[in-house]
Amino acid sequence: MAIRVVLLGQGLVATHFAVGVERIKKGELEPYGVPFAKYKMVYDIKDIEIVGSYDVDEEKVGKTVYEVAVKSVGDILPVPETLKNITVRRGIHLGSMEGLPFRVKGLEDELGSTKAAIERLVEEWKQLQPDVIIEVATTEPAKAFHDVKALEEAIERDDRKRLSASHAYAYAAYLYAKETGRPVVFVNVIPSPLARDDAIVKLFEEAGSLVLGDDGATGATPLTADLLEHLAERNRYVLSIAQFNIGGNTDFLALTVPERNKMKEETKSSIVKDILGYDAPHFIKPTGYLEPLGDKKFVSMHIWWKTFNALEDELVVNLRINDSPALAGLLVDLTRIGKALVERGEKGTAYPVNAFFMKDPGPRGARNMSRIRAYYQLLDYLREKGVIKA
Amino acid sequence: MAIRVVLLGQGLVATHFAVGVERIKKGELEPYGVPFAKYKMVYDIKDIEIVGSYDVDEEKVGKTVYEVAVKSVGDILPVPETLKNITVRRGIHLGSMEGLPFRVKGLEDELGSTKAAIERLVEEWKQLQPDVIIEVATTEPAKAFHDVKALEEAIERDDRKRLSASHAYAYAAYLYAKETGRPVVFVNVIPSPLARDDAIVKLFEEAGSLVLGDDGATGATPLTADLLEHLAERNRYVLSIAQFNIGGNTDFLALTVPERNKMKEETKSSIVKDILGYDAPHFIKPTGYLEPLGDKKFVSMHIWWKTFNALEDELVVNLRINDSPALAGLLVDLTRIGKALVERGEKGTAYPVNAFFMKDPGPRGARNMSRIRAYYQLLDYLREKGVIKA
Amino acid sequence: MAIRVVLLGQGLVATHFAVGVERIKKGELEPYGVPFAKYKMVYDIKDIEIVGSYDVDEEKVGKTVYEVAVKSVGDILPVPETLKNITVRRGIHLGSMEGLPFRVKGLEDELGSTKAAIERLVEEWKQLQPDVIIEVATTEPAKAFHDVKALEEAIERDDRKRLSASHAYAYAAYLYAKETGRPVVFVNVIPSPLARDDAIVKLFEEAGSLVLGDDGATGATPLTADLLEHLAERNRYVLSIAQFNIGGNTDFLALTVPERNKMKEETKSSIVKDILGYDAPHFIKPTGYLEPLGDKKFVSMHIWWKTFNALEDELVVNLRINDSPALAGLLVDLTRIGKALVERGEKGTAYPVNAFFMKDPGPRGARNMSRIRAYYQLLDYLREKGVIKA
Amino acid sequence: MAIRVVLLGQGLVATHFAVGVERIKKGELEPYGVPFAKYKMVYDIKDIEIVGSYDVDEEKVGKTVYEVAVKSVGDILPVPETLKNITVRRGIHLGSMEGLPFRVKGLEDELGSTKAAIERLVEEWKQLQPDVIIEVATTEPAKAFHDVKALEEAIERDDRKRLSASHAYAYAAYLYAKETGRPVVFVNVIPSPLARDDAIVKLFEEAGSLVLGDDGATGATPLTADLLEHLAERNRYVLSIAQFNIGGNTDFLALTVPERNKMKEETKSSIVKDILGYDAPHFIKPTGYLEPLGDKKFVSMHIWWKTFNALEDELVVNLRINDSPALAGLLVDLTRIGKALVERGEKGTAYPVNAFFMKDPGPRGARNMSRIRAYYQLLDYLREKGVIKA
Ligand SMILES: NC(=O)c1ccc[n+]([C@@H]2O[C@H](COP(=O)([O-])OP(=O)(O)OC[C@H]3O[C@@H](n4cnc5c(N)ncnc54)[C@H](O)[C@@H]3O)[C@@H](O)[C@H]2O)c1
Ligand SMILES: NC(=O)c1ccc[n+]([C@@H]2O[C@H](COP(=O)([O-])OP(=O)(O)OC[C@H]3O[C@@H](n4cnc5c(N)ncnc54)[C@H](O)[C@@H]3O)[C@@H](O)[C@H]2O)c1
Ligand SMILES: NC(=O)c1ccc[n+]([C@@H]2O[C@H](COP(=O)([O-])OP(=O)(O)OC[C@H]3O[C@@H](n4cnc5c(N)ncnc54)[C@H](O)[C@@H]3O)[C@@H](O)[C@H]2O)c1
Ligand SMILES: NC(=O)c1ccc[n+]([C@@H]2O[C@H](COP(=O)([O-])OP(=O)(O)OC[C@H]3O[C@@H](n4cnc5c(N)ncnc54)[C@H](O)[C@@H]3O)[C@@H](O)[C@H]2O)c1
Ligand SMILES: [Mg+2]
Ligand SMILES: [Mg+2]
Ligand SMILES: [Mg+2]
Ligand SMILES: [Mg+2]
Repeated sequence: MAIRVVLLGQGLVATHFAVGVERIKKGELEPYGVPFAKYKMVYDIKDIEIVGSYDVDEEKVGKTVYEVAVKSVGDILPVPETLKNITVRRGIHLGSMEGLPFRVKGLEDELGSTKAAIERLVEEWKQLQPDVIIEVATTEPAKAFHDVKALEEAIERDDRKRLSASHAYAYAAYLYAKETGRPVVFVNVIPSPLARDDAIVKLFEEAGSLVLGDDGATGATPLTADLLEHLAERNRYVLSIAQFNIGGNTDFLALTVPERNKMKEETKSSIVKDILGYDAPHFIKPTGYLEPLGDKKFVSMHIWWKTFNALEDELVVNLRINDSPALAGLLVDLTRIGKALVERGEKGTAYPVNAFFMKDPGPRGARNMSRIRAYYQLLDYLREKGVIKA
Repeated sequence: MAIRVVLLGQGLVATHFAVGVERIKKGELEPYGVPFAKYKMVYDIKDIEIVGSYDVDEEKVGKTVYEVAVKSVGDILPVPETLKNITVRRGIHLGSMEGLPFRVKGLEDELGSTKAAIERLVEEWKQLQPDVIIEVATTEPAKAFHDVKALEEAIERDDRKRLSASHAYAYAAYLYAKETGRPVVFVNVIPSPLARDDAIVKLFEEAGSLVLGDDGATGATPLTADLLEHLAERNRYVLSIAQFNIGGNTDFLALTVPERNKMKEETKSSIVKDILGYDAPHFIKPTGYLEPLGDKKFVSMHIWWKTFNALEDELVVNLRINDSPALAGLLVDLTRIGKALVERGEKGTAYPVNAFFMKDPGPRGARNMSRIRAYYQLLDYLREKGVIKA
Repeated sequence: MAIRVVLLGQGLVATHFAVGVERIKKGELEPYGVPFAKYKMVYDIKDIEIVGSYDVDEEKVGKTVYEVAVKSVGDILPVPETLKNITVRRGIHLGSMEGLPFRVKGLEDELGSTKAAIERLVEEWKQLQPDVIIEVATTEPAKAFHDVKALEEAIERDDRKRLSASHAYAYAAYLYAKETGRPVVFVNVIPSPLARDDAIVKLFEEAGSLVLGDDGATGATPLTADLLEHLAERNRYVLSIAQFNIGGNTDFLALTVPERNKMKEETKSSIVKDILGYDAPHFIKPTGYLEPLGDKKFVSMHIWWKTFNALEDELVVNLRINDSPALAGLLVDLTRIGKALVERGEKGTAYPVNAFFMKDPGPRGARNMSRIRAYYQLLDYLREKGVIKA
Repeated sequence: MAIRVVLLGQGLVATHFAVGVERIKKGELEPYGVPFAKYKMVYDIKDIEIVGSYDVDEEKVGKTVYEVAVKSVGDILPVPETLKNITVRRGIHLGSMEGLPFRVKGLEDELGSTKAAIERLVEEWKQLQPDVIIEVATTEPAKAFHDVKALEEAIERDDRKRLSASHAYAYAAYLYAKETGRPVVFVNVIPSPLARDDAIVKLFEEAGSLVLGDDGATGATPLTADLLEHLAERNRYVLSIAQFNIGGNTDFLALTVPERNKMKEETKSSIVKDILGYDAPHFIKPTGYLEPLGDKKFVSMHIWWKTFNALEDELVVNLRINDSPALAGLLVDLTRIGKALVERGEKGTAYPVNAFFMKDPGPRGARNMSRIRAYYQLLDYLREKGVIKA
């Protein structure tokens, strides 16, 4: 019983996902980095089947995922031959790569309008029959609509300023589900507000489908969440938090563009107040781009606080971590969980899933909590829903 | 409704506790570092009243707690005058300070036998009427008895090699409870196995009393527990863990004696397997003594693991933390919780309390778990028992 | 034989300097942080006498240095009464505080033109008779003139955009020296190019005076220089350098304004190529402002390289350091050395001094070198000139 | 004009040396990690020719260096075929591997006496005609003789307790030089005191030969030296130094044996006083063995000090560094420099070389200095002697 997956954005994360899943299926890789791998779930990792991939980079469109993978991770990973079967298709651009040094073209440029581009996607998906569609393209400036009509009008009048590619993709996914009656799971691991957009959640609910998001929680942010929980549980009074991030992948390059950086910053800051209960002064944002670091970023964090008798303690954390594989590992479970939940009648969005997997959990207004708490709440929820057995 | 407290070992921890509690009572200090301060509990911090103190160091016995405090923390803290009312009494030594550069004498030396010393303590406590007795003396080599008879025989034949001071104190507490019918809480925050000793737990159960222990969980150990939980929840495969600790207080000095160091090492290692599910190679122990660091120790930790696609990540944590205040803050809650529980009929030991507060939670054979999980389990337990309201 | 000193900018650095010098004179403070304190120099620290202070902040002008010191460092340092004798005078502003949340007014605003303001300063200095004038005001955007005429014309036509306060101060110092025949030392420890400005150096040469600068070398930059030297001497091939700086003093606040940040960035980057011999990719700049950190900044640095057999090593440095005292300590020696040199006939600028003490050593085009090398070259030079005895 | 080299101890360092030199000769490797590679020296790296190798481990004796290398570094490095030409011979053991889990046998066991073993070596070397002999075997407990007669008597009466393998090797080297009239360079990069042993230095002087040593300066020690120099030059007052080292190679395993650990500890501590001028409290020693770390050790260092106005700063350094390649890179230059010097008439030992390359520079009583200073002194010396051209 396969889970058919379509990837939007064949970048490092999508490539690590594709390579890792195929290696696990071949039995040559342990599922490290897949959170719930140790539990028996209704879907196995081996059930995942990637059936489609989209991008807008002219260097990728038309190539096979195998070719893309060899180029981007071939020096550090063996690339499975099975990825030769998937060819990267042209997606919707809507300016998501603006200002970056890549040659890009979107379906809307080819077909003349965003609406036509969306229709083309729906058609293609009717062929590919995805169960899960994963949005993992470049971070783009994007704003929630919250109103279905406003969203639909923006598409109608081809308002390319207001519309983000992720909204266009999500809307296409909704149409596909509605028109085929086949529920779909849209997994949004980029900062664009989709699971936090009332309009999107409403549409997915209507189509018996599920949108999970927003912005995958990997790297320093979930670790900070758990460190803050650790401090809060001891009633230590946090004086300030500084967190620096620097990396050399194109995701960091993209974040040097101020509007994109801002998309991330907001996300990262919300955890402080939600967990501590007060807004401890903090500086948390992607800090810089340094090419030789590649996908293995360097993170430095300083936290200090008042302990008993008002004396001061200090903590410094330094990380050297692989950025993209971390998210790829989460995608494995998001795929399996999403599919199992939608089959069990969950629709709209699923906060317990988002609370663990996402930096900015939908729906709109939902609180962040420490990851360790979210993990156990999710475990209970998955057991209750029958997604995890025993 | 006061909680009457007796301290065993008027060292840095006990002194921070005494000073901090009095400062909070005066309203000059926020209860930072007291884990459950933000909840409404049946006993308030202001209910804590220190009524007695014991030590074996000739420099301390006979002095007031005020004098001891001025000498040890007077340079960094204001010392409340109220501490002039408590004079340090002579306790039982039983070799706990052996090999250390202090002039010591125990009650058993004065009175000729351990049994006589125990009886003297029981007498004094009948006067002082403690509700809670806190064992916070120097780490000593100690072994569990597990058999009440074996313990009582060791006292009877004055076997000073086999008996530890902590066992003698706990036995005295039991006698005091039994003879007065007044339930007592014995809080053991040093590594000696008491809450893990079947014999001690049995005696306390018999006397309607409670022993909580062993070895207060402060510093790097609970943080490591939560970091490992964080990694385990993402199914990251831990390759190794190195943790160094160096400090300049007499507790670190004591741990340069190999047998004492071993008491700590075992404690610290048990978390790895209990949380990860496998025994990741690790090096975790108090590493050295460096006088100028004083009570603010330096901790460095290296953890690395395999993430998705078997790539390797690395984490380094460096801490500069006040050692003794951390434990003093926990003692505030252990005192309040212990008293409330024993009044509500809890007896023997209380695993949910130990699991959060202790490095080696009793009873014997009990598992370690991450602190964040233990915290929420304890919260549920305290609500259920009515110790925390609402 | 006193050295008469005037301070420009009564901020944290100037205040630490004033307080520290007075405390050393009273015999209550060891001269830690004063590089050449252990050598016998022709001028002793006790010879330093602060005779004047200038600022443009309305909160400071008219107050005594004592009042300013109590407010800014009174919580961490004893403030000597002798500082009551110096009152902060109004200096030249020329927009150096633009965009910052302070109420400011310059002499040029009061007197109508920059030229008038400069003349006023010269007059005042004829009274105060300074030997050494220290520029330690807020970092400002500033550009070198390199041409005396261009500089003088800018003053003449009151071109407040082109002129920086530091240039105006330096020009006033030159006039003062020329008119009185009394050689002066102008110590510039802010990024403005003065010792690197051919025009300024030429004027000082003409007046038998000395300008030392630019931008005092404290904190992470000289440490990085020495770490890079360490690596270069082993022919390790540096792959990249990341350096983050965050602090909570007004200097960091000022650097959040982009043009000011740029003044620092250039300075900090020049060391890489000068020491390694190739331009290793690097990210080095003041990164953020976080108020609770105050004057004790947090620095994190990551350097990695290829060692023998092309294997990769990594180094992480974390610092928590007092920002302003570090520069104040250097000022003590710059004052003593500058005075001794100018008396021995040195004029223009003095590269051996700048190479050790400054991030951007003048004259124009001069190379950076590791601090350890610069130190020994300076020692030789000072011995040769008779400034250090034996 | 080849330099013929014999290796004593075919462990990780010797293997990295052999592999690296051959790779450089093949033109496939840049000489990173070779300090003076950027200077023109009378001998080129390509002149190095390894002609012999000795060990006592039964797993290595009789194998080719190629086989040994494939087994120990084959997973991370390409191993050149040219190493098939060198077969590991049996060396002198004298208990240097005692207490370690290896099956060993020494020539003295085979031939009945140490004297016979030494004679055998001299014979073999007359065949191999080495110019440079490198002692890089397992760290062993060893004590200087300082008296030639005492050394010769220990050999005569086969006193295996008193004699160390390194002394026996050095004596054999002396005999070989004396008997052939061919000057030899003995490079000792292990802690055994040879260049600090008056007896050894005297013998080498007599034979027109050179002993360089002791204990190669790699890793945290020379870095600490340069950091301390950095602090000393600013007259910062160091409060304490903590340095932890943990690794997983057999060198770390060997150092878990207390007597071996002590050999290293002394070495590492001597730098503090020599550089700072006072004995700042410190804890510096190899701390532990953790197998998964392999040859890439983890180092953590904490240094704090008083800066100007007696405020306190803190520095933490964390390293993850390849242990053995670092020393192998130094051996390349020690070989070239040693050979060039001995040809230019240098004999006994050469302090300027030792001061840069060694942790415990001979001769006896010589001072440690910061590496950066030592580097420039060595550069001058090498230029003066004509070893480095221009
Ligand atoms: N740990 C993580 O890596 C992590 C965590 C959270 C979120 N994210 C987010 O995941 C996304 C992907 O990260 P990555 O490292 O793979 O980045 P990447 O730059 O390697 O890949 C992004 C890919 O998306 C493509 N793309 C851009 N616009 C597109 C569009 N409109 N339609 C289709 N394809 C488009 C690009 O051409 C590129 O191939 C980013 O938005 C990132 O912020 C990553
Ligand atoms: N964070 C922490 O500080 C922490 C955490 C867990 C456990 N602990 C344990 O708490 C204990 C106290 O720590 P500290 O920092 O206060 O140490 P300390 O050395 O400052 O104080 C110990 C005191 O106990 C006294 N003492 C020794 N033997 C005694 C005896 N038999 N009877 C009565 N008094 C005796 C000593 O004279 C001394 O005054 C230690 O065993 C330590 O391992 C501390
Ligand atoms: N370690 C260090 O602190 C360090 C190192 C190198 C350079 N610097 C430079 O030293 C300078 C002073 O640093 P600080 O920490 O004392 O900063 P600060 O902000 O505490 O003090 C600067 C003072 O200068 C005054 N000022 C501003 N413009 C002026 C003008 N035109 N004339 C006279 N006064 C003026 C301000 O009102 C303020 O009182 C900054 O430029 C800083 O970048 C500092
Ligand atoms: N950066 C560094 O690695 C570094 C720095 C300074 C000093 N050292 C020293 O260099 C030496 C070698 O380090 P390594 O990492 O190669 O260690 P290793 O354990 O990998 O190799 C040592 C080799 O010496 C052999 N050996 C032992 N006793 C011998 C004897 N009597 N005669 C001949 N061979 C003998 C062993 O069998 C082994 O093959 C150690 O003493 C170490 O302390 C290393
Ligand atoms: Mg990424
Ligand atoms: Mg303690
Ligand atoms: Mg400053
Ligand atoms: Mg080694």
